[in-house]
Parts: sequence; structure tokens; C-alpha cells
Amino acid sequence: MLDDKQPQLTPLENLGEFGLIKHLTESFEIQNESSVKGIGDDAAVLNLGDLETVVSTDMLVEGVHFNLAYVPLKHLGYKSVVVNLSDIYAMNATPTQILVSIAVSSRFPVEALEELYAGIQIACKNYKVDLIGGDTTSSTSGLVLSITAIGSAKKEELTYRDGATENDLLVVSGDLGAAYLGLQVLERENEVFKVNPNVQPDLAQYDYLVGRQLKPEARKDIINLLKELDVKPTSMMDISDGLSSEILHLSKQSGYGFHVYEEKIPLDPSVIKTAEEFKINPITCALNGGEDYELLFTISQSDFPKIKGNPNLTVIGHTTEKNAENYLIIKGIESAVPLTAQGWVNI
Amino acid sequence: MLDDKQPQLTPLENLGEFGLIKHLTESFEIQNESSVKGIGDDAAVLNLGDLETVVSTDMLVEGVHFNLAYVPLKHLGYKSVVVNLSDIYAMNATPTQILVSIAVSSRFPVEALEELYAGIQIACKNYKVDLIGGDTTSSTSGLVLSITAIGSAKKEELTYRDGATENDLLVVSGDLGAAYLGLQVLERENEVFKVNPNVQPDLAQYDYLVGRQLKPEARKDIINLLKELDVKPTSMMDISDGLSSEILHLSKQSGYGFHVYEEKIPLDPSVIKTAEEFKINPITCALNGGEDYELLFTISQSDFPKIKGNPNLTVIGHTTEKNAENYLIIKGIESAVPLTAQGWVNI
Repeated sequence: MLDDKQPQLTPLENLGEFGLIKHLTESFEIQNESSVKGIGDDAAVLNLGDLETVVSTDMLVEGVHFNLAYVPLKHLGYKSVVVNLSDIYAMNATPTQILVSIAVSSRFPVEALEELYAGIQIACKNYKVDLIGGDTTSSTSGLVLSITAIGSAKKEELTYRDGATENDLLVVSGDLGAAYLGLQVLERENEVFKVNPNVQPDLAQYDYLVGRQLKPEARKDIINLLKELDVKPTSMMDISDGLSSEILHLSKQSGYGFHVYEEKIPLDPSVIKTAEEFKINPITCALNGGEDYELLFTISQSDFPKIKGNPNLTVIGHTTEKNAENYLIIKGIESAVPLTAQGWVNI
Repeated sequence: MLDDKQPQLTPLENLGEFGLIKHLTESFEIQNESSVKGIGDDAAVLNLGDLETVVSTDMLVEGVHFNLAYVPLKHLGYKSVVVNLSDIYAMNATPTQILVSIAVSSRFPVEALEELYAGIQIACKNYKVDLIGGDTTSSTSGLVLSITAIGSAKKEELTYRDGATENDLLVVSGDLGAAYLGLQVLERENEVFKVNPNVQPDLAQYDYLVGRQLKPEARKDIINLLKELDVKPTSMMDISDGLSSEILHLSKQSGYGFHVYEEKIPLDPSVIKTAEEFKINPITCALNGGEDYELLFTISQSDFPKIKGNPNLTVIGHTTEKNAENYLIIKGIESAVPLTAQGWVNI
């Protein structure tokens, strides 16, 4: 992706660190009143008034979290912001500021970083958050991104991971497994490209999957929807590592066991089709795939009428008893399989 | 440093990511009322009340910012926190929380990370800040640390970089140039060690310099001292990149020129002695060396009687006029040399 750029590229040294930060961030506009002071001093200044402040941070490493062979830098910038905002929404809070630090080797020209920051800027605009600081440094090898997001919420609105209680319903937004399959498609095409660079991949049929992998969205809309529906989850988190391990987190932190119904797990038709092509069980993609950035939460049974029939929300299970095990309930064979962080083993 | 450990080391995989974070941070205690929720949810929760919040972040990369051949991991952990806290103090604010993200390759055993976190923990205790979150991920090559510090101050106490005005005095805390020379000593010893590993280096005479490099402190005491003296700087920053480039920042942001007097720049006797040994001008170490983490600030002339004679504070210059150039004034030859970010060239 770096190869098909124009030949005149600007070495990073030409700008210097401060010049580079200024160059990359001068077009960012402050959108939140709480951002008193952004980039340009020893620290940013926020005025967060009477709300609770939430802070989350993530580090993304080239070769571990992304492969620049098939991830455009603009998408990487966008996604790395969204992933952090997703954590803030998962607290039922509103993100307001981000800080972005990058370590980058000299093989990246200025234009590559411009692409990265263009993606960051689009995310800032779409989610109305302000870039207020960060650090830019050189790296001896690949690209490393570290993003910190700050947000706020009223104290009574915050949702933690530990609040589930007996007979709560387990709800998930959107559908699962697509981001994982999108990655499989991208990796396969990359292998084909390595063997024969002249092959033009036809990814049209995988659009949804690849889009979910490259350009995920944080479910701000679901947070707003829950407010409109007057539903406050008893516990909530976002799905970054796969449904299985996230349910185990909610279980461990609340102390309650969960039953999840295989047939209820929401899957896009393209997930079912492509999983078949890759000879994977689509449910395994949902349970272990990760990177869906959907919200997983528990609600009181009394709130069920409020969410019933909403196409964005699916009840996939419920809590059972204190200290009980977690099970995936499989239809037809009426079997219950213990949930593990490594996910469900095909039976 | 990793080589002289006991032979039974624990591979990182044995713990898993969540196990690792828990293992490394479970002995950290919350010290600030404002830390409502620390590690273990999607995001940390702070309650910062009516104060202004300040946030700062830094990224440290192995091979760029530190060399593990001569930097013990415990010192690295301590220093990486202190460097961030220094930015918060430079706003005249009090740090309260930090987030620590690390990317680490599998060549590091758990024990190495324990050392790193032991240093982080000592810094947290010494400066009374809470570790409230972070991310731990694998790296394809070296160690990368990203630290975000959060603090607060009353609005009227905050000091920015742009507040200097005509005929303000330029003041620096402590002494300068030692951290840079400490690094020169460590690098020289490392080269000697590479040639002959049996040579036991005698670093006793360089104790102060090496200590300033490996275990710098943030000048919390100076912030408290200024409050006691009832002095509010008109502008302030910490010295991480060398006196020259920091003065240029204060100048650029305020719009005023500065005169700095060479003879006034505070140097420890060991800096003068060791600079001679390395055939460097000790003033060059102060101007361009960096990593001193002293505070550089401007005060009104009317505040001079309050700081006069204080052994921790040295007046090294003053602002001149709006849009004027910045000069280093050299005694004896009565010459003025323009200050540049690359520092003063020997004449």
C-alpha cells in the first residue's frame, strides 16, 4: 500500500518531532467545551465538571494487531480510535477526548503518517471527540500506536462489568463473527498476492466481512438507543476478544453463571456462507473470533418488553445462579457445552 | 541484566494477558479518592470534581529511548512514570493517576516484567499516584512503553508555556547537564564491557551523573516550594530535551525573546569535571543534553525577592521584547550567540 504512492515522499527527518506533530494535527478542531487546552503544552487540560470521567487505553503493534500489507493506514487510524471509543461506550459513557502516541520507523514517509492521521481525524469527527495530545517518536522496527480515550458520564449511568444478577437477560448488539472472517479473507488474498502479484482479487462478495475487519464502528447508536428505551444495563462490555471470553469476564466479575443459546447468536448470512467456504463453524467465529466491537450486556427481565423485537438487539442467554458454570446450550441435540476462553470445541 | 537472573524463569504465555496484568498489578494500592474504578473494566473511572484535569502521555521505545544493556528494568519502570509526572508538575498541577501500556516480545520472562512493574510501583508510591489501567500486548521486536498521566489543579494555578511577558525572569530548578553525561558514562562502560566482559567498571565517581540518567525525579518539591513562597510562574515547562530547545518553546509560545547568561547556568561540579574528561563543553551538555527533568519557568520581577538566595532555584536570564531573538550571553568576551534548537556551537 505504501508502494503505489507518488514517488516524491518526504522523509520524517525533514519535519522534526514538533514540526511533525504540528503538521499532522493542525487541521484537527476542538469540539468539546471540556477540552480547555489541547496539543502544545506539557499536558492537555480538561474541565470535566461534575461528571464522572472514564479513561481507556490500547496499544496496537504492527505484525501483532495489524498487517500493513492489507490494512490501509487510513483505516488503521480510524480503527485504532474506534477501538478505544468502544471501551468508553461500554461504560455507558460518552467519549470526549483522545491522545495518540506513535512510534514509527524511518521507512514511513510523512505521507504515510498523513494517511494514518486522516483516518484518526475522520473518527474524531464522526464520534465528536477531540485529539488533545500524544507523543511521536522513532521506532527501530515497526509501527506502534497507543491511544488513550477519555469520556464522561453521570455517576448513575455508568455500567460496570460486575453488575449482573440472578436471571438477568444476556443481550448483544448487531451480529458476530464477521470481523474474524474478514481477516481470514484478507490474509488469504495476501497469500495469493504474494504468489502472483498480478491477480486482482474480487472481494465484492466479502464486502461486509472485510468492512467489519478494516473499519469497525463503536456502537454509540446502541448507547443512545438504550437511553431512548430507558434501559440501563446491569452490566456491560464491548466484544473485542470474542463472545466466549467476554461472557467469562461478566461471569467472573459478577459471580453468576451464564447460559448462552447457540441458535440465538446473531450471524450475518455472509458469515454463514463464508464460514462454510473456510470450513469453520460460524458459531466458532462468533465465540472466538473477536474484533466485532459489539456491545454485550445484561438487563433485568423486567426490561425485556422495552427491547423486544428491536432488530439491533438480540437476547442470547441469561444468568443462572451464583458460582454456577457457564454453558453453551446447543439446540437439537439438547446438549450443554462448558464455555471456555478458547471457545467451544466442535462436538 | 536479564542474563544474571535465576535460571527458572516463567514464559509470558504461562499467565495469559489478563493473568499477566493481574499478576503485575494486584499489589498496587489505590491512593487517591478521585480513583473511583481502576484496572478491571473497559475503562477507569475518575471523579475529578471541580478541579481542572490535566493529561499527558509519553512513549518509550527500546533502542531509541533506552538500552537494556545498561538500564535495569526497575529503573526503566521508575523513570518512565517520573518522566510523565514531570509533565504534570510542569503545569503546576498534581498528578493523581497513570495508565501504563507495554508491548513486549517473548524474550522477556515474567520476572523481567515484574522488575519493570516494581519500578513503576515505587514511583506510584513516592509520588502518590494510582495505576488505574493500561494494555499489555506482544511485540515483534523490542519493548515499548506508553504512559499516560492524569492530574488536576485549580484553574487559577495552572501554568502554561505561553504566559511569559516583558522583563520576566527566567528561572531553572536544580542543575543541568548531568543526565546527558550519565548516559555518556554508561555508553562508554557498555562498549568496554562488550570488548572485555571481565572488567568491573568503577562508576563511584560518576554516581551523581549515572543516578540522574537512570533514576531522575520529577520536581514535585519545587511545585510545593513555589506555593510556599507564594510565587506563581508566568509560564513553565520541564526540561526533557535540553535547555536550548525548551527556551525556544517558551519564546515561541509567548512571543517574547530571551537572554540567557552562560555563567548563570547551574552545573554540578561533577558535570564540569566529567565534561572535561569527555572533551565536551559542560554548557553544551546543559543546553543540548536533555533528560534533566528540572523545571524551567518565568516569574515577574516583583517576585524576585521571594526566590532570591534559594539554593534550589537559579535565575539564568530574562525575557526581552516581543518578537526579539533568543541569545546566549557569554561572559568575558561579551558576546551574544543566537540560541538554536541544536544548541550553542562552540566559538
